[in-house]
Amino acid sequence: MPPLPPALQPHPDRLFPPDPGVRAIARRLYEAVRELPILSPHGHVDPRVLLDDLPFSDPASLLITPDHYVTRLLHASGVPLEELGVGAGPQPQAQARAVWRRLCANWAVFRATPVRYWFESELAEIFGVTERPSAENADRLYDRISERLRDDEFRPRALFRRFGIEVLATTDDPCDDLSAHSALAADPAWTGRVIPTFRPDRYLEAGRSGWAEAVALLGETTGIDTGTHRGYVRALEERRRYFIAHGAVSADHSHLDVRTEPLPLSEAERIHRAALAGGASEAQTTALRRHMLLEMARMSCEDGLVMTLHPAVRRDHHGPTAARFGPDTGHDIPVRAEFTEALRPLLERYGTHPNLHLVLFTLDETVFSREIAPLAGFYPSVYAGAPWWFLDAPDAIRRYRRAVTETAGFSRTSGFIDDTRAFCSIPARHDMSRRLDCGVLAELVAEHRLDEDEAVETAVELVSVNPRKAFRL
Amino acid sequence: MPPLPPALQPHPDRLFPPDPGVRAIARRLYEAVRELPILSPHGHVDPRVLLDDLPFSDPASLLITPDHYVTRLLHASGVPLEELGVGAGPQPQAQARAVWRRLCANWAVFRATPVRYWFESELAEIFGVTERPSAENADRLYDRISERLRDDEFRPRALFRRFGIEVLATTDDPCDDLSAHSALAADPAWTGRVIPTFRPDRYLEAGRSGWAEAVALLGETTGIDTGTHRGYVRALEERRRYFIAHGAVSADHSHLDVRTEPLPLSEAERIHRAALAGGASEAQTTALRRHMLLEMARMSCEDGLVMTLHPAVRRDHHGPTAARFGPDTGHDIPVRAEFTEALRPLLERYGTHPNLHLVLFTLDETVFSREIAPLAGFYPSVYAGAPWWFLDAPDAIRRYRRAVTETAGFSRTSGFIDDTRAFCSIPARHDMSRRLDCGVLAELVAEHRLDEDEAVETAVELVSVNPRKAFRL
Amino acid sequence: MPPLPPALQPHPDRLFPPDPGVRAIARRLYEAVRELPILSPHGHVDPRVLLDDLPFSDPASLLITPDHYVTRLLHASGVPLEELGVGAGPQPQAQARAVWRRLCANWAVFRATPVRYWFESELAEIFGVTERPSAENADRLYDRISERLRDDEFRPRALFRRFGIEVLATTDDPCDDLSAHSALAADPAWTGRVIPTFRPDRYLEAGRSGWAEAVALLGETTGIDTGTHRGYVRALEERRRYFIAHGAVSADHSHLDVRTEPLPLSEAERIHRAALAGGASEAQTTALRRHMLLEMARMSCEDGLVMTLHPAVRRDHHGPTAARFGPDTGHDIPVRAEFTEALRPLLERYGTHPNLHLVLFTLDETVFSREIAPLAGFYPSVYAGAPWWFLDAPDAIRRYRRAVTETAGFSRTSGFIDDTRAFCSIPARHDMSRRLDCGVLAELVAEHRLDEDEAVETAVELVSVNPRKAFRL
Repeated sequence: MPPLPPALQPHPDRLFPPDPGVRAIARRLYEAVRELPILSPHGHVDPRVLLDDLPFSDPASLLITPDHYVTRLLHASGVPLEELGVGAGPQPQAQARAVWRRLCANWAVFRATPVRYWFESELAEIFGVTERPSAENADRLYDRISERLRDDEFRPRALFRRFGIEVLATTDDPCDDLSAHSALAADPAWTGRVIPTFRPDRYLEAGRSGWAEAVALLGETTGIDTGTHRGYVRALEERRRYFIAHGAVSADHSHLDVRTEPLPLSEAERIHRAALAGGASEAQTTALRRHMLLEMARMSCEDGLVMTLHPAVRRDHHGPTAARFGPDTGHDIPVRAEFTEALRPLLERYGTHPNLHLVLFTLDETVFSREIAPLAGFYPSVYAGAPWWFLDAPDAIRRYRRAVTETAGFSRTSGFIDDTRAFCSIPARHDMSRRLDCGVLAELVAEHRLDEDEAVETAVELVSVNPRKAFRL
Repeated sequence: MPPLPPALQPHPDRLFPPDPGVRAIARRLYEAVRELPILSPHGHVDPRVLLDDLPFSDPASLLITPDHYVTRLLHASGVPLEELGVGAGPQPQAQARAVWRRLCANWAVFRATPVRYWFESELAEIFGVTERPSAENADRLYDRISERLRDDEFRPRALFRRFGIEVLATTDDPCDDLSAHSALAADPAWTGRVIPTFRPDRYLEAGRSGWAEAVALLGETTGIDTGTHRGYVRALEERRRYFIAHGAVSADHSHLDVRTEPLPLSEAERIHRAALAGGASEAQTTALRRHMLLEMARMSCEDGLVMTLHPAVRRDHHGPTAARFGPDTGHDIPVRAEFTEALRPLLERYGTHPNLHLVLFTLDETVFSREIAPLAGFYPSVYAGAPWWFLDAPDAIRRYRRAVTETAGFSRTSGFIDDTRAFCSIPARHDMSRRLDCGVLAELVAEHRLDEDEAVETAVELVSVNPRKAFRL
Repeated sequence: MPPLPPALQPHPDRLFPPDPGVRAIARRLYEAVRELPILSPHGHVDPRVLLDDLPFSDPASLLITPDHYVTRLLHASGVPLEELGVGAGPQPQAQARAVWRRLCANWAVFRATPVRYWFESELAEIFGVTERPSAENADRLYDRISERLRDDEFRPRALFRRFGIEVLATTDDPCDDLSAHSALAADPAWTGRVIPTFRPDRYLEAGRSGWAEAVALLGETTGIDTGTHRGYVRALEERRRYFIAHGAVSADHSHLDVRTEPLPLSEAERIHRAALAGGASEAQTTALRRHMLLEMARMSCEDGLVMTLHPAVRRDHHGPTAARFGPDTGHDIPVRAEFTEALRPLLERYGTHPNLHLVLFTLDETVFSREIAPLAGFYPSVYAGAPWWFLDAPDAIRRYRRAVTETAGFSRTSGFIDDTRAFCSIPARHDMSRRLDCGVLAELVAEHRLDEDEAVETAVELVSVNPRKAFRL
């Protein structure tokens, strides 16, 4: 008789500090937050999934293929992206099963990564899997999850309720008609709150291919002549209002840097026209983008959309993979970030404006203590955004708290943002964040740097108050 | 009957690592250093406070208004600086009380910051406060502290003695006549040691407004013609001698970078004259500043003043606040630092000079392991300065020790520097440093990387030997 | 009767985390790896030492004089390099004894550095020393070690066997005839595996003095006309084949940066000729070096030599010391590193090539989480190299694992590299790495992020599988 496969049993104390005294405090703090509703003010779930509420097709298409956190490390481990169904649209069951097998056979490469942690939580707590995945049990697990997915309780809306999500923000193109959001809001059978986010990157990058088409689409969508810079700016303002009318609370920006520099209007106009005609230099289009980021801050002061910045990633680092499989396929690689000098023109103008909320995210940890915490520790408009993407993991989250808190405290941080396109990982991600914050707070209590009543209050605020305040939920 | 307000009781084990075995070691190490006299070789206390020895006026003017560590986080939390009395001179009691209430009502925003820690120590250990501040007890605490401040035992000189300060360095303008220092030294009722520090920044920044006036003042003060570069250099040398004669042991420098580049004397002369005439370019004035930093090192080799560098802060980040409230009002924001290439010309010339002590401080933690520790681990002139400003906090201090020690050991570090303008925080700051160093040393002992007798010796040296050696006290 | 000198007794639990529960796990993991053979795929031991197998001359020449890790901190502490025999060739016994005394008298400056740790292990475990070094016992220890060194069991080959070294890679000039390696391999009395490493830095830096001579030597050695770029490239390919034929598995590169940029062949040819004639600009020679780094990657794809990168050190920071004592004398100082943009041209071409293994090392810790882990987490060719040089120390090694693992897991890391020229430190260095990895894994187990069976398997893989895979041993 073969030995039993190793069990998959998320431990009730997982992620708490190992010292027994500290762990006991962490447990008590966690009890105060474990059941609180989830606020997800930034993420990438497709609202149509909730609108249509169709059963998920299969375990691989749900949990592997669309999630570049998962596929990139399999790719690094020698599994070609085509064998994971990346960029190929809906996949037949046989292929989905093959993809699933590849994950299970390579389970070990995820050891000590957050992907492994999230997966374990999802498998155990959502799908009731009790065995550690392996090449041997891959088919058995596939069948079990598939069976569950056919159950009504595993359809998107049922999961949304089960996950305890109070607000879920999506990320949307400024010209999106937001019909999915409207239809959801109008559906009497639906009581959740799903809100769009204004993400205008491609409209602000005059140096990237596709900009002229985007500007034209903006003109068509708004009925405003976007052939002029002035019209283009008006059209963006118009679409922001449209998003706000559909529930949006924030505008998100991800460029290579966050430098902001005002241009004279005449110069902006000149570059706008030159770029539309294909005759603007890289320096000019960069200048225009930096001017527009400043404009976005101005608009935020006027219309109240929270401004979030996610800079300093070299997108599509491996051109051949991007060409074949498209964007967001695992090879966006961070570069150095800089906020102090880059944001100075913006903050000199709007940093103390009562209407501006500016949430700063980074993949470059060096700016946490050097720049973001000092900025959030002076400017009432600035919030230190939660650890993001590669940093959304236990040790990195602890480093974030330790780097930011001593200068900016807890109240100047945004609260957790899951930023995920993996719907089923949402509860595990928020739970991870709560456990880790409780662990950090427990250490402060154990070192007599904070009283336990204060730690409880802070733990609750980080979950329920900070994101509501930073994102005006 | 309302519940008792939460107590304010600094715990005897505060800041020690939570593991019971490690904590027991830390306690033993701390016993060896807790009562040692305070050496404060760099700070910003006004010597007139000690000369005049007048009672402090009120709790807010003593503990809040002049301390940008405190006001900046209140500002970020929505309290305008004018409501904190910043930049407005002496404040009437009613306003001081209102400022104090704002601190107490916002007590929570300081959780887990060092400001909270220092405040707690000061309130409990100096003023005997036993309740955690809040909106409810603000007036009661204000009255209690006010009452204490009227007591002779709470006048500056009495506190100086009570704090156990052996040496206190101030920071002074090169043209200051140091009359406060002279008068103090001549006062037979005064036995403390208060020494000036030569801080020539504004005399070395030919590109900043006010430079020509500073140079003229330097000429008047010394009776040397500073219209020429040669005269200007001689005048600076003269003022350094004057400072040394008044007890100074160090010269402090804080520029945006620490790049040093020699200029031919003729070129320095040319730029000097052009800058005085208002006709020097930014590149030229920057070149002159970099040349002068090298000159300062040369002078240190000649006259023995320890050279300390505190670079890489964008001062007055928010222009409107600087214009209204003045400098040092909470919005100096760090930028990236670089030492390896920048200091090479200086170190190639003077790095092994027996008379040079060069203490390197940073707000950019990335240079601790990458640059400062390797430099201090080779050059006999270089010391790794203590964590400074935003980094003068428990977790940052631990990171500093862990980043520096493995390359440079303990002996190449400067010992603690409080760098404070908050007189009453001096004992708490030094105590924090001692507790943390004992904790780090206890962990080394617990991991069998150091024997306990060595750890005791090291703890004592960090407090009593290193600053004496690095600063030639 | 004087007190006994403090004992030198490396503790069986050294470097394990202090929490008793975590420590117990770490002990169990360590038992699985402590006796495994040493794989050393990158280092600087001279193969002639093993070929000749002569007794080591004395303790100072063996353990101090040639090791810049040791001499640099003594130098920083005021001991001139000439008093340590640096750069002066073989030293008479009296001088060697004096050097040894200086180390012992300054033993305290190494507290909590890895040098102290390695030394302690070597003294206790290789030479049976049981007293902590001091000025008092320096002569006694010197005599004891000297006596041992005369024993056959302390000759290089005996130590090699005793250390349990399975593979030892040296670092060699491309024009080296590798006769020591050949002779060793041909020696029937020798069963160890000592392999060369191709290190072509000086042949790729057309901007450095000596390049033309190196290119000429390359021509002589290969009989190929290296007066043309094409011939020079062919000659390098030829020498790589020669190295491979002598057992080499990798080519190592250490330049100021790792930027790679292709040049048109005609342009490379033009710069090659201009540089030989002494007429190339710095921009041109830098461009040629960046082109050649790309060429090296191409060659690796063709011939299978693993490519290792050790960039971003300012060599010979203190010119006067370099001039007097030569290179590698303790004043190579790190600078900022950048990989994301710099390696993009290389990775776009060869990043998914099945034959390329590219191992990235850094002295700038900021790139671990920001750049190296994301690159190793996508590109099948990229491995995160072990912590190197200043970072090869307990706390830095822990930071490395925590920064890299969450993004790249364990499987994408290279395994430990000792990179040492201190032969006797090899076992202590590998043991340190094993202890620390077991400690990190034990913490993951204690926090329920990994099961213990997985941790055991991972610990063994890090020692025995990862280096074999990354370096194709």
